[in-house]
Amino acid sequence: MKRHAKARPRAVCLVSGGMDSAVALAEAYHVGFETYALSFDYGQRHKAELDAAARVASSLGVEEHRIVKIDLAGIGGSALTDRIAVPKDRPRASIGKKIPATYVPARNTVFLGVALGWAEVLGARDLFLGVNALDYSGYPDCRPAFLEAFERLARVATAAGVEQEAEFHVRAPLLQMTKADIVRRGIELGVDFGTTHTCYDPVRRAGRVLACGRCDACKLRLKGFLEAGAADPLAYVLARKKR
Amino acid sequence: MKRHAKARPRAVCLVSGGMDSAVALAEAYHVGFETYALSFDYGQRHKAELDAAARVASSLGVEEHRIVKIDLAGIGGSALTDRIAVPKDRPRASIGKKIPATYVPARNTVFLGVALGWAEVLGARDLFLGVNALDYSGYPDCRPAFLEAFERLARVATAAGVEQEAEFHVRAPLLQMTKADIVRRGIELGVDFGTTHTCYDPVRRAGRVLACGRCDACKLRLKGFLEAGAADPLAYVLARKKR
Repeated sequence: MKRHAKARPRAVCLVSGGMDSAVALAEAYHVGFETYALSFDYGQRHKAELDAAARVASSLGVEEHRIVKIDLAGIGGSALTDRIAVPKDRPRASIGKKIPATYVPARNTVFLGVALGWAEVLGARDLFLGVNALDYSGYPDCRPAFLEAFERLARVATAAGVEQEAEFHVRAPLLQMTKADIVRRGIELGVDFGTTHTCYDPVRRAGRVLACGRCDACKLRLKGFLEAGAADPLAYVLARKKR
Repeated sequence: MKRHAKARPRAVCLVSGGMDSAVALAEAYHVGFETYALSFDYGQRHKAELDAAARVASSLGVEEHRIVKIDLAGIGGSALTDRIAVPKDRPRASIGKKIPATYVPARNTVFLGVALGWAEVLGARDLFLGVNALDYSGYPDCRPAFLEAFERLARVATAAGVEQEAEFHVRAPLLQMTKADIVRRGIELGVDFGTTHTCYDPVRRAGRVLACGRCDACKLRLKGFLEAGAADPLAYVLARKKR
């Protein structure tokens, strides 16, 4: 009789539509949380990732999925929201060395802020996100120091923190994983990577979304599948030969 | 020859349309910053405050005023964005004792997050906001502990913090002021309080916006003017007599 079971604690999970947040969401469910998925329509140049977020959320049994609209393009400064070119064909070794043009200023601060607000409303104390500090793109707000600082902030920023001394936990279960680890863990947890979307510069052809295979995000993803010895179910544009 | 003068450093100033953020904005300009005003269309139930924010920004000589749209009503939980009643006629002594229904979960975390993002884009290192810890409404994210935690977060959350070791400063010049102090300081700095809007539950009558005079925000404002011995230029609904 499932309704007599002890209620699962709630967790708000940031779901971008990418593979990392999908695995983090699956992990949240796996460790016992009732999951509430949160995505953002923040003026990103293509909506393929929001479609993916909706597929990911429904395929991983979330209680609810909300998409909050915020106009980060209004403050500019990123190749993901502005008319700045997405870098292509960077040597893989350079990825993560310098903060790239796709960095959206203070994005995770804003996203975690909204997640924190929803967590208060839901009575949740746990926020899950899919950042990882190893095979990452070099964004400052994906590092452990950032997550710890946000956790400290959450305790003083909320009514729950002040009135009930509630402690919020920012959980990044992929933090110390390589992309290959993430692929393997996702497969263990039953994540269908075909529901996810990763590419910064996708092509729509004959109604299908094709990944470019050349942006930082595609390169990290492909490396992950390669090293995990698994097949990526996504469709890619066939790479043009270089001279 | 003004164009040969040393460039003023830039500051992003949160401007709500209320009297406190107007005085904080005037203070930012007064101490030497080139000011960039930031307001939010966050699903608040009435738009009178955004009209006021635009009046305040233009009357106080900002370089630019941006209004960022974010759908905080999508996560619910507040009388300011939800269908929860605005409390009226609370004894003034109880204000600030308990976190009220008008608290918007994690609002200042989200607002400062966006301000931080814009600051990065502008090369600004200073964020001004009009919170004060004395005559305040009891919101957790208006306290010094919150501001300090956000400042620590900003240093690890940004590209500027990581690459240039930039230190961001969250400046709350009204933090230790009473409402009466704020009124006095505003008058010194030439703030036209007639441009501001404070009421949580205004009435629109014959094309004019009238303040209710009974919500927490109106009560604190009126107390401030009374104690400062100044006249509030705003129009109020005439108070009904109580039996």
